[in-house]
Amino acid sequence: MATRIKSLDLANTSKAYYAPATIIQGNNSRLVHVSGQVGTAKDGTVPADCASQIHLALLHLRKILIAAGAAVQDIAKLTLYIVDYDPAQRKHARPIQRFLKGHRPAITLVPVTQLAAPGLLFEVDAVIVCPEVPASLPAPTSQKTSETFDVAIIGAGLAGLTAAHEVLGAGLSCVVLEARDRVGGKTWSQPLSGGQGGVAEMGAAWINDVNQTKMIALARRYKLELIEQNTTGNCVLQSFDGKASTFPYGELPRFDQATLEDVARIRDMCEADCQALDTFAPKNTELDSMTFEAYLRSRGASETSLATATVWTRAMLGAEPSDMSALFFLNYCRSGGGLLQMRSDRKGGGQHLRIRQGTQSFAEAFARDLPAGTVRLNKPVARVVQDGPSYVKVVDTDGATYRVRKLITTVPSPALSHIDFTPRLHPAKEAWSQSAGYGFYTKAIVVFKRPFWVTKGLCGLAQSFVGPASVIRDTSSPADDKHALTCFMSGPPGQAWAALPEAERNEKLLEQLGVIYADRAAVDSNLVEVLKYDWADDRWAGYGCPCASLPPGVLDTLGSASLREPLGNLHFAGTETAGDWKGYMEGAVRSGERAAKEVVGGLSSAILPHL
Amino acid sequence: MATRIKSLDLANTSKAYYAPATIIQGNNSRLVHVSGQVGTAKDGTVPADCASQIHLALLHLRKILIAAGAAVQDIAKLTLYIVDYDPAQRKHARPIQRFLKGHRPAITLVPVTQLAAPGLLFEVDAVIVCPEVPASLPAPTSQKTSETFDVAIIGAGLAGLTAAHEVLGAGLSCVVLEARDRVGGKTWSQPLSGGQGGVAEMGAAWINDVNQTKMIALARRYKLELIEQNTTGNCVLQSFDGKASTFPYGELPRFDQATLEDVARIRDMCEADCQALDTFAPKNTELDSMTFEAYLRSRGASETSLATATVWTRAMLGAEPSDMSALFFLNYCRSGGGLLQMRSDRKGGGQHLRIRQGTQSFAEAFARDLPAGTVRLNKPVARVVQDGPSYVKVVDTDGATYRVRKLITTVPSPALSHIDFTPRLHPAKEAWSQSAGYGFYTKAIVVFKRPFWVTKGLCGLAQSFVGPASVIRDTSSPADDKHALTCFMSGPPGQAWAALPEAERNEKLLEQLGVIYADRAAVDSNLVEVLKYDWADDRWAGYGCPCASLPPGVLDTLGSASLREPLGNLHFAGTETAGDWKGYMEGAVRSGERAAKEVVGGLSSAILPHL
Repeated sequence: MATRIKSLDLANTSKAYYAPATIIQGNNSRLVHVSGQVGTAKDGTVPADCASQIHLALLHLRKILIAAGAAVQDIAKLTLYIVDYDPAQRKHARPIQRFLKGHRPAITLVPVTQLAAPGLLFEVDAVIVCPEVPASLPAPTSQKTSETFDVAIIGAGLAGLTAAHEVLGAGLSCVVLEARDRVGGKTWSQPLSGGQGGVAEMGAAWINDVNQTKMIALARRYKLELIEQNTTGNCVLQSFDGKASTFPYGELPRFDQATLEDVARIRDMCEADCQALDTFAPKNTELDSMTFEAYLRSRGASETSLATATVWTRAMLGAEPSDMSALFFLNYCRSGGGLLQMRSDRKGGGQHLRIRQGTQSFAEAFARDLPAGTVRLNKPVARVVQDGPSYVKVVDTDGATYRVRKLITTVPSPALSHIDFTPRLHPAKEAWSQSAGYGFYTKAIVVFKRPFWVTKGLCGLAQSFVGPASVIRDTSSPADDKHALTCFMSGPPGQAWAALPEAERNEKLLEQLGVIYADRAAVDSNLVEVLKYDWADDRWAGYGCPCASLPPGVLDTLGSASLREPLGNLHFAGTETAGDWKGYMEGAVRSGERAAKEVVGGLSSAILPHL
Repeated sequence: MATRIKSLDLANTSKAYYAPATIIQGNNSRLVHVSGQVGTAKDGTVPADCASQIHLALLHLRKILIAAGAAVQDIAKLTLYIVDYDPAQRKHARPIQRFLKGHRPAITLVPVTQLAAPGLLFEVDAVIVCPEVPASLPAPTSQKTSETFDVAIIGAGLAGLTAAHEVLGAGLSCVVLEARDRVGGKTWSQPLSGGQGGVAEMGAAWINDVNQTKMIALARRYKLELIEQNTTGNCVLQSFDGKASTFPYGELPRFDQATLEDVARIRDMCEADCQALDTFAPKNTELDSMTFEAYLRSRGASETSLATATVWTRAMLGAEPSDMSALFFLNYCRSGGGLLQMRSDRKGGGQHLRIRQGTQSFAEAFARDLPAGTVRLNKPVARVVQDGPSYVKVVDTDGATYRVRKLITTVPSPALSHIDFTPRLHPAKEAWSQSAGYGFYTKAIVVFKRPFWVTKGLCGLAQSFVGPASVIRDTSSPADDKHALTCFMSGPPGQAWAALPEAERNEKLLEQLGVIYADRAAVDSNLVEVLKYDWADDRWAGYGCPCASLPPGVLDTLGSASLREPLGNLHFAGTETAGDWKGYMEGAVRSGERAAKEVVGGLSSAILPHL
């Protein structure tokens, strides 16, 4: 009689006398017991800090989940073993919560004095119950229509529309399936409700005319007007004690000398370390085995330097330095030309130019240029089936089928799991998609009658160590008589703020603005309205904005190219797959061009032998 | 709705407020959760060392497995709790691996500072899934033939053939079912392939004419020629540093005075302690609660004394002092007349006389003497069914049935589990069978043109603390112009050696012989061939040789007679069931006689009332 217990192995585990997990086959489900997983990097080394080890151990657990055909939602029980546990810190809670994404298993925490090998600080084991893998695909409930194209593209954001242009330009037929009722994806320009001119950018807002060559060319092609970011005047820092102080744009805040030197040292170190990376193929096991926070602490960063770096990660990704791999963050900076360039509001910087008509105008203009019927709105893709070598079947949620030779998906990695791929995506792509996570990132756009801060000699740019807004920028459009401050309600302070009742929320923010611009009366007397959009509720973006970040281990153990590598006739675009300007509109366009090139090249070479 | 959870109890657990295990009844399987099992002896005492506690805790777990109708292969998850865990030692790994016998569950190791009671150093809990116990036996696939005998005997080794002679001599009919294509069991004499005369003994090799009365009588009856073991000249010790030194046969190696005294003290202590035991019914809770290593360490044995004792266990059983109960090892020595006699190559010792024609000649001669058709080769027994008080049904793997009144099995205890017994064997027998384990034990027989070691004043006997061979003996047959050294490739060094590629393996061994006999050139110039047989691959022996050893707790908590006690009409023979010369040919013959006596006595008394 066959044994009912199967050992589950990953690469390189089969020689151990125990298995990473066992699978008990039931009648309609499988029960999986997972061995204690610890935070080892790909090369077997163990990072020095607990948080980095937690991320790596959770990545190992994730790989086991994927190998078992299970998901986070299938976890019944976790047991956490923590060395040197500090009940005052509970540092495990945040990474575990991010890992669970709202799923609530039973958890036992066991503080221990040591683990199986020296240096190990965290171990997690699990009990998982997952449904039987279906033997075959269920038939579509109703196959309404079936159309045939050379190429289908999922997503009518900048990546998808760019790809559509390129594909059509190469003489291929193409359909773009967009889940939303609009084009633009994470560019979304809303008219102000207060009756003033101009738009509020709920998503992407800035380009530049130096190194964002694709975006500036599009702005010129579509005759969009550019608004230069105001950097005249002082910036404001709101420090740990909640008090505000000013400093000239381009300089560091008025810290004491030692603090100033440490912040400068850490900034320059990050700049140097990110410049040493290959934008397209970052590789550094040490940096990918630790969180960005562990990296900073291991380099002796002061609390002020850490708070400064936290402003960076919150403003850029909505996440904390402890949420992401050091390699990921440094590479993200590198992709925007480096930390300094990416954070600059001046010429060549990440926040230099805005679009008077709104950044959604790019997508709208693009879409108008496409043949009628190319872009299909309100068509979320439900299933993608590659059941032969030459064709891909794409099924939308209405059951309509698109039979294509190539598919480009521009879906953000955290949202890839919303689509049912048959066969399943490569385990590395699944692990990447499940590991990638947004932080909390909401813009509150506060519209005023007059730019009262300008008359006070301030450029509007502010950063805060306490929140609720971490960074604030002037996003006025004087030609439209629009005067606004865009407040980045990011990371834990932003999330706590967003959870407040609306009245309290507005009061908290206005109170902060009163402190920062040293004039609560001016804030109140000039206030027109507060606009905001919660990307955390946006299903199609994968519940976040602007770009997902990666915890330790993903880039190093899955391979930095594993998200964008084609898989049969599937091609992967989207700004996060870009080399340059990852997370920006420029990166989206470049990724669309790259994917289109793969597709056109693939179909041309496939045709040639028949000629 | 009836509760689906049943508490599982062992003897004396039902008064505790928790159960040793619970069983969740599923549709086709049972899920068993096991309470933490600790290393208590039968009397509740706890041995002082962790390794002994591990063995005892695993024995408790094994009893629960058996009570639940489960096997080691049904373990899904183990969690190990270890006090004073030392990551540099990982002492749990070997006993756990031996317990698992290749099964690979998920395992989590949790170092802890203490356990539920003082002195406890190890605890293990488990999750087990086992198939439903079949309600009734499946019908034999095809019942080819059915024969009827008074007695069936499983195994045509020395125990089985002896029993057959006795049974037939008492006027009963008998069949011997042998799985192999030859008689002899663990005696197997192969001709040398190099064309010289003489044989290579792949299994048992030595007898004596003093206290092995059965064997010497057989040798005389069958006119087999005896070769006396050479003990003229010096022996060699290869020490920790790999260097060889000589010492006269019968003396201790040339250690420094303190070492010499300690080795002599430990040897004499073992001799005294083994002489105090009852060969047939050893009983000593303290000695059976600790490993032989723990016994030695608790008596202050030096590293050299431990290494010396390791040579004993490797050469005698292929296993480590940490693998077996002190009581088991001392009793094993006692059964051969004591440690000194068992290890002696001189008159009355365990290695005094060899058989020129080979030890398999005993079985061959025995078999020739039996009526035609008594011994059936290539007939592995698949099932044994006792479904009534008077008969036993034995079914071979071809489906042929033998209906008998008594069955004698001579199957080695580790191989008993290969036979499907209905009803199941008594739990004590199952626990014994599952606990009994061979070490690693392979003989490499190196054949030479000339006995170059003799001309150097060496008797050939050598022992090594480093391996790959632990012990080497001259097994030449001058009358056949056969000159050979038999190298005992035992324990971990032997196992590591056997795992090497063949070329490397031979080179390693020849290198060692070159060091030991201080003449690599002579080794190479005289080399004819190297013969070996891996008993670890031998299914019918239970994957090992010469005799299974027992971890702590088995003799004491199951009872030292529990393997050989009859069970209904089943009788148990085989060398390990013997009192005297357990593990030797002499023990096999004696066990066969004893089982035959039980059978003849049983059938006579059963008949008498009808007269």
